[in-house]
Amino acid sequence: MAHNQMFQYSLALSLMDGVADKGMPISEFLKHGDHGLGTFRYMNGEMIVVDGKAYQMLSDGSIVDLDPNGDAIHPFAQITHFKPEVTAKTTIPSKEELNGIVSGLVPGSKNHLLAMRLDGVFKTVTVRTAAGQEYPRQRLIEIGKNQVSFTFENVRGTLIGFRQPHYLQGIGVHGDHLHFITEDRKRGGHVLALQSEGEVEVKAAQMYTMTLALPKADEDFDKAELRGAHEELKKVEG
Amino acid sequence: MAHNQMFQYSLALSLMDGVADKGMPISEFLKHGDHGLGTFRYMNGEMIVVDGKAYQMLSDGSIVDLDPNGDAIHPFAQITHFKPEVTAKTTIPSKEELNGIVSGLVPGSKNHLLAMRLDGVFKTVTVRTAAGQEYPRQRLIEIGKNQVSFTFENVRGTLIGFRQPHYLQGIGVHGDHLHFITEDRKRGGHVLALQSEGEVEVKAAQMYTMTLALPKADEDFDKAELRGAHEELKKVEG
Repeated sequence: MAHNQMFQYSLALSLMDGVADKGMPISEFLKHGDHGLGTFRYMNGEMIVVDGKAYQMLSDGSIVDLDPNGDAIHPFAQITHFKPEVTAKTTIPSKEELNGIVSGLVPGSKNHLLAMRLDGVFKTVTVRTAAGQEYPRQRLIEIGKNQVSFTFENVRGTLIGFRQPHYLQGIGVHGDHLHFITEDRKRGGHVLALQSEGEVEVKAAQMYTMTLALPKADEDFDKAELRGAHEELKKVEG
Repeated sequence: MAHNQMFQYSLALSLMDGVADKGMPISEFLKHGDHGLGTFRYMNGEMIVVDGKAYQMLSDGSIVDLDPNGDAIHPFAQITHFKPEVTAKTTIPSKEELNGIVSGLVPGSKNHLLAMRLDGVFKTVTVRTAAGQEYPRQRLIEIGKNQVSFTFENVRGTLIGFRQPHYLQGIGVHGDHLHFITEDRKRGGHVLALQSEGEVEVKAAQMYTMTLALPKADEDFDKAELRGAHEELKKVEG
């Protein structure tokens, strides 16, 4: 696949409906890129792919360096071969302000998909890590109630993710969806808030092609409701 | 591209917002399949691709046999290399009942994309044909008010199209979206209603991969609102 094309397996909506028993094997998923994020069977932890290496970030704070040919599967995941088109050094006061800052770097991108990466020292990065389903088909909004959040202070690391336009809410997650990993690759999670320590490096690229692979022979997916993107999804992933 | 993979250019939502000045050239579009539908610059008529041949069906009832290397462009279009997985002879009392009939032929497909084709004699087929924008950025819902509809009676022909799940409303069109062309390839349009004359042949295939190509360097698309999929789109394409 060419650079800066999004490959996605399944839907954010299917996680909302608790569909997390099956998924795409990691070996298949990693063929589609080197920069990505996602989740695991039973939504056990947060996945990040940075420079082609995949990690599982668990709610107990531990991290698993994933075998690219191992048995991890992803009920939802997004990846691209990332080639930055814009690179800038800038201060990020908050996650909300990151949105405007990136829009300034990539004008006219409101209705487009972006791949994004931030590298540097952060005064704070607040992450949450899904602790996994307690029973089959438990919905993401229920899991969210038991999620573990943690704030890193004065930490060096990398944020990897995507910006998705409003019309992709439900397919993916509208807005800036980022996962974080520390420089030593020992901690991380799904980013809720952040503030840079001075300037950090921001890289972005617009993506004009998105390939969506849908679950095959997954009865849970076939029977799921898959509605309510704009109401519920904002609460847990927004 | 393999069989039964959907390729789509731009969004149904962008037509809602009147984005129809630019589009994918037909020569590029036809690389992705032999079975499809779409529209033209300024939404001037309905496009159908049947057995790899593309036609422009105009609101005056005329039809243009398109040059695959000509200058037609498509602001919105969908196509696949169609390979039927299910073939059945059946009576279709109405467009609404077609939905349940196809669901019976392809069980468990509620949350999936289908490619569909019907061939045979129809007691009635009611079509509408968009007459095109009267001014730039005219919204589809406004064009719809001036659309021409026509009912064919005792007509032999082919219906080509797709079924899209609820979560793709806005990206495409939720439900059965079909275009019709007569056997002599002289008339047709966007299907609003139908009733078969006895049994017709119904073919369908499930599609597990969808590639969405987004407009590049299209200022109208970049600035469009691209919201309101579930309210307005149902009125004009449902």
